[in-house]
Amino acid sequence: MCGGDIRASVLHGAKDLRVESRDLPAPEPTEVQVAVKATGLCGSDLHYFNHYRNGDIICKEPMALGHESAGVVTAIGSEVTTHKVGDQVALEVGLPCEACDLCKEGRYNICKGMRFRSSAKAFPHFQGTLQDRINHPAKWVHKLPETVSLEYGALVEPLSVAFHARDRANLKPGSTVLILGAGAVGLLVAAAAKVSGAKSVIIADIQEDRINFAVENGFADASVLVPMARPQTIEDKLAYAKDLAEKITSTKVKGEAVGEVTATFECTGVESCMQTAIYSTQAGGKVMIIGMGNPIQTLPLSAAALREVDLVGVFRYANNYPDVISMLASKNAALPDVGKLITHQYNGFDEIPKAFEMAGKVKDEKGNLVLKVMVGM
Amino acid sequence: MCGGDIRASVLHGAKDLRVESRDLPAPEPTEVQVAVKATGLCGSDLHYFNHYRNGDIICKEPMALGHESAGVVTAIGSEVTTHKVGDQVALEVGLPCEACDLCKEGRYNICKGMRFRSSAKAFPHFQGTLQDRINHPAKWVHKLPETVSLEYGALVEPLSVAFHARDRANLKPGSTVLILGAGAVGLLVAAAAKVSGAKSVIIADIQEDRINFAVENGFADASVLVPMARPQTIEDKLAYAKDLAEKITSTKVKGEAVGEVTATFECTGVESCMQTAIYSTQAGGKVMIIGMGNPIQTLPLSAAALREVDLVGVFRYANNYPDVISMLASKNAALPDVGKLITHQYNGFDEIPKAFEMAGKVKDEKGNLVLKVMVGM
Amino acid sequence: MCGGDIRASVLHGAKDLRVESRDLPAPEPTEVQVAVKATGLCGSDLHYFNHYRNGDIICKEPMALGHESAGVVTAIGSEVTTHKVGDQVALEVGLPCEACDLCKEGRYNICKGMRFRSSAKAFPHFQGTLQDRINHPAKWVHKLPETVSLEYGALVEPLSVAFHARDRANLKPGSTVLILGAGAVGLLVAAAAKVSGAKSVIIADIQEDRINFAVENGFADASVLVPMARPQTIEDKLAYAKDLAEKITSTKVKGEAVGEVTATFECTGVESCMQTAIYSTQAGGKVMIIGMGNPIQTLPLSAAALREVDLVGVFRYANNYPDVISMLASKNAALPDVGKLITHQYNGFDEIPKAFEMAGKVKDEKGNLVLKVMVGM
Amino acid sequence: MCGGDIRASVLHGAKDLRVESRDLPAPEPTEVQVAVKATGLCGSDLHYFNHYRNGDIICKEPMALGHESAGVVTAIGSEVTTHKVGDQVALEVGLPCEACDLCKEGRYNICKGMRFRSSAKAFPHFQGTLQDRINHPAKWVHKLPETVSLEYGALVEPLSVAFHARDRANLKPGSTVLILGAGAVGLLVAAAAKVSGAKSVIIADIQEDRINFAVENGFADASVLVPMARPQTIEDKLAYAKDLAEKITSTKVKGEAVGEVTATFECTGVESCMQTAIYSTQAGGKVMIIGMGNPIQTLPLSAAALREVDLVGVFRYANNYPDVISMLASKNAALPDVGKLITHQYNGFDEIPKAFEMAGKVKDEKGNLVLKVMVGM
Repeated sequence: MCGGDIRASVLHGAKDLRVESRDLPAPEPTEVQVAVKATGLCGSDLHYFNHYRNGDIICKEPMALGHESAGVVTAIGSEVTTHKVGDQVALEVGLPCEACDLCKEGRYNICKGMRFRSSAKAFPHFQGTLQDRINHPAKWVHKLPETVSLEYGALVEPLSVAFHARDRANLKPGSTVLILGAGAVGLLVAAAAKVSGAKSVIIADIQEDRINFAVENGFADASVLVPMARPQTIEDKLAYAKDLAEKITSTKVKGEAVGEVTATFECTGVESCMQTAIYSTQAGGKVMIIGMGNPIQTLPLSAAALREVDLVGVFRYANNYPDVISMLASKNAALPDVGKLITHQYNGFDEIPKAFEMAGKVKDEKGNLVLKVMVGM
Repeated sequence: MCGGDIRASVLHGAKDLRVESRDLPAPEPTEVQVAVKATGLCGSDLHYFNHYRNGDIICKEPMALGHESAGVVTAIGSEVTTHKVGDQVALEVGLPCEACDLCKEGRYNICKGMRFRSSAKAFPHFQGTLQDRINHPAKWVHKLPETVSLEYGALVEPLSVAFHARDRANLKPGSTVLILGAGAVGLLVAAAAKVSGAKSVIIADIQEDRINFAVENGFADASVLVPMARPQTIEDKLAYAKDLAEKITSTKVKGEAVGEVTATFECTGVESCMQTAIYSTQAGGKVMIIGMGNPIQTLPLSAAALREVDLVGVFRYANNYPDVISMLASKNAALPDVGKLITHQYNGFDEIPKAFEMAGKVKDEKGNLVLKVMVGM
Repeated sequence: MCGGDIRASVLHGAKDLRVESRDLPAPEPTEVQVAVKATGLCGSDLHYFNHYRNGDIICKEPMALGHESAGVVTAIGSEVTTHKVGDQVALEVGLPCEACDLCKEGRYNICKGMRFRSSAKAFPHFQGTLQDRINHPAKWVHKLPETVSLEYGALVEPLSVAFHARDRANLKPGSTVLILGAGAVGLLVAAAAKVSGAKSVIIADIQEDRINFAVENGFADASVLVPMARPQTIEDKLAYAKDLAEKITSTKVKGEAVGEVTATFECTGVESCMQTAIYSTQAGGKVMIIGMGNPIQTLPLSAAALREVDLVGVFRYANNYPDVISMLASKNAALPDVGKLITHQYNGFDEIPKAFEMAGKVKDEKGNLVLKVMVGM
Repeated sequence: MCGGDIRASVLHGAKDLRVESRDLPAPEPTEVQVAVKATGLCGSDLHYFNHYRNGDIICKEPMALGHESAGVVTAIGSEVTTHKVGDQVALEVGLPCEACDLCKEGRYNICKGMRFRSSAKAFPHFQGTLQDRINHPAKWVHKLPETVSLEYGALVEPLSVAFHARDRANLKPGSTVLILGAGAVGLLVAAAAKVSGAKSVIIADIQEDRINFAVENGFADASVLVPMARPQTIEDKLAYAKDLAEKITSTKVKGEAVGEVTATFECTGVESCMQTAIYSTQAGGKVMIIGMGNPIQTLPLSAAALREVDLVGVFRYANNYPDVISMLASKNAALPDVGKLITHQYNGFDEIPKAFEMAGKVKDEKGNLVLKVMVGM
């Protein structure tokens, strides 16, 4: 009864999304079945949609996209005691191997055997969440309290990236925080910094509307518009980065220059931003590498090493869902309203292609910012 | 010109405070001279005032009290470049030896050679701040931004205790926090938890007005009134503590029982509270020992050790002033208004004895709570 | 073929061990089957053997004892790719729930749902390793390199306790270490301290032969014989503990008094030792609570808290097997020969009762120390 | 009496060392006066000697070189109680400002106001130790126990760099460690890894004699000879680094391939080594940046970030002298004999130029390795 036909939005090639009928078995004893209700679209989904690949990872078979999802439990496996039908839940869609040393140590995000929904890395591909219903291990299905809606539940996944970055930076109250990139990830990192008691959050982007959005909605205390420039030589590139760092550190918050920051969260993947991050961070501080961009970068390494500015990678998240959900439920007054990131909403399978088209834009036809596009079902 | 006669409030015996004239030399090259403007009274001051001793530490000579102070710079030593006359400042009144391993490692709060104003531990006693002006090393005099008033500046010292506790507990957003004791220290720890993104803060005390104050002013999300009882046998004591822990963990916040907490901050020094702390804290959590009370306590040690609940001492603070001042300046929305703790204000040397009398009370004659008594000058 | 009849040594009541025939199924797809070859007897096994209970935990059905075991793989489940028949392995016999937050974070040792072989906590009891063969999940079966024999393999379990304690203390080279209790656990902690580059290891016990063993075999640099005394009042108890701490810290190593130590590992569970631990540890140091003894203890808590000496519980181990096996394989020159702890060896099911009788003694009939009794099969 | 004329070896220009007479005042109240007896020559000294500059830092006045020194106390200031005439001591020659946040937090090595002997960064230059006697603050003069000779005392400085790197990597027993560069720093890092209980230490260098020295003297378990090659394009460079990483991780120790390592210590400053470090380190591991070389490097940043391999700078040391001296005194069996690094000894002021000439060579005229050149006085 809980098995049966479901619809899925399946990618068969670049921009070739098809609504298909699939057979869904009853959940395994330790699984729950979840009707997917809200799914945020992410940059990696968009890469697959546009190119049938994501960087080096090439699709080898049709794959449903979607991995930022919340929904409602529709059936539970025979051994499941933690969930019941009707529970509202956020899905943690990466399934680590649970046997390697990293998994046992709690760093399951960097498990080599990780299977992650809507990623074509493992084969057969682990299908994404843009389906009517999916079966998923109960242990990776997190209950939402009544006070957290399904749309906010769909933000738990990208918020977990932000909180994982926060944890690796070990942000303390009173810190000064720089965020490079004011897209969805940068804004969510800003929220994580705010709720960690940051003294001041500075955000920088090349898009003026984005940094304005950040400041106007309480994600950042100040902003810097990054100049469009294309320096060619390494000397010019570093001079550009130094200038930008100077501009950032001399930015005033409440009348006082922010100075070199405690931690910089680099969310663009752009080489010049990484260079700027190093120059903007104080001795003993940290540069968190979140943005995925140019895989090979030329960096002023000594400027980091001699001041013990550590370059710390951040890949997805581990053990963040419970804290993120708690934090959303707590209505912490320092937390900006992350729901404002949901700028565009589409509903039903038929609108998914439109949703992807919109997710690829910086602004929509009315000139409004596109931050997080949500698909409701 | 910056030396000369000053007045000081000097304790000569139990409740024997005298206003005396003292000669203040010009500041040494690396010192600044500060006109003390606001001083909060602390429990240790009160012990000296009432008994001319503080626990085992007995006064051996007349001593000015006071160590929670802010003021205005009136002169600077010849080598000082960091301060100027007129700067508003918070005083960090403990001077560590700066030569031992603990000092070099940054844990100067537990330096054996620490000289701390208004403590009779070192001899000659390092005189407290209830004086017109004092000379103090510039490096331990922290500038207040314009947005932080002198009264809030005087709260930086006890807030630093709270933030040091927070740091040692390494509180993350999403934590659940229990605070035992809703006096000034407990409330400031609650503020530190709030600004660290705690999911929920539960506070417990035997005084109903105190826990009401905590909840009504946003320091805590829920409260537990601790029953007055005097169990005599260790079995009865532990049963009492278990009952209290059960009451605490079943307390609801936003409709959900708080459960065993991530960290408990024990701010009473009472044995039954320490026992309750152990029973209320989740496996892998921390009990922070802040309250100074019975130096010898009978504890359910296995109940802590077998669940790896660590018992972590907190003594004063180290490296917290900058972050606390930043946090006050940031007007972080999650921070309750710590200024509300200043329930009573006295002004001038003549009112200091009255201030101490009030500081010894739980409520004033009108039935209002006494939390922090401030002396202005 | 890999299932079938096996023999098991099963406890039916106090000192009532019976060799029984049991039916062993073929291993599940993710299990391996291991012929148990060497099993060290542990204090908890001995408690069950003598009392059919271990503290508060009472046996409710017949149970095989044994949990410090190594053996040889005899069959593998259908999905197992990591092991092959003939592999020599050490068994990690605790199976955590793998679904709770603590498990996901890597602290599976304090998982509430842990099932641990030869413990009567869970029901039905998870049977111990004193059987011909057992089936066990492959992920908790650790391969031994050729250079680590099965007897040393059986020491990996208690060594993991020692290394988990070491990790929680975060011992650095150059530390001074005090170990209270020179039984098997204390000696293995000493080994862990040695291989971590401790400057000096001091060991104390009431048994002169044990501390002599420790020093003569390179586990400790100096020793203190703990005087037998039975102080009755708390004042006398603390005076006794202070005297002992004074004796310990004034003990000389290479001509120099050891002084207050970086970390104390309390392996006795005796209240006076815990008190001594607090007095012997330097400000900012750690007291590691390993010994299980009196669950309720009266402690000089302020003497710990005011000097930020943390009281840190250690329960079993998590993620230590790989490092311990690596360390045994590396033949690190600082590692004392832990094989010398195996003072008595018994072979076959018939000798198991004799093995338990011996494990309960401090010395055998010839006056030789009894440290670790090994059962070979 | 303790003041007076002393001789100093003073650099006036490239390769222009002159023995000069200088006037040494009596020590200040908190200083001790030390007759310098043994000084190891370091790469930075050599840069100044050869070029009258060190990278970007240019000499602006004559400067005595030398900063790896031990000696004997010849006089003490009026307030010094910790030292006495005749004490053998190791000099910690960097004097931090002791007032900034980093100093107070114990990270004084990255203090912006640091004055470091024989560095031309501060002006007037803080003169080096190649003098008869120097005055130095008592708190930065570390006593050597009898068992540590002055020559070993002169190795405490470079060993502190190695131990600071070790601490920042938080090496645990059982780790696998890769060291790139088998010069003095690399070998001392190897010693630090050994004494931390490393399972295996792999060392790589382009000089076959150096890696042989490392293995033959117990600093490393295995070695890799780095091929001389000059790839030009970034693709070729990364291919070269991947090949080298493959060669390293497939190197066998005790019959088993070492695999990706827990931590890599990059001691060469060469870009291709840094690239190799990233490829050789396991997910969740650390690359420690110790070597100072090309300040701008092109790195496969995603290969680090996506696997959370952190790039961690190491600059000098903080709080390491006490532990290093303890460790030398402990005669820990896992510690290789670091004294073997002293391959060449020169005595007296007249031989200092010869010492510098030798320090610039990889091998001496007899074909023997040059590792650490020591100047005795």
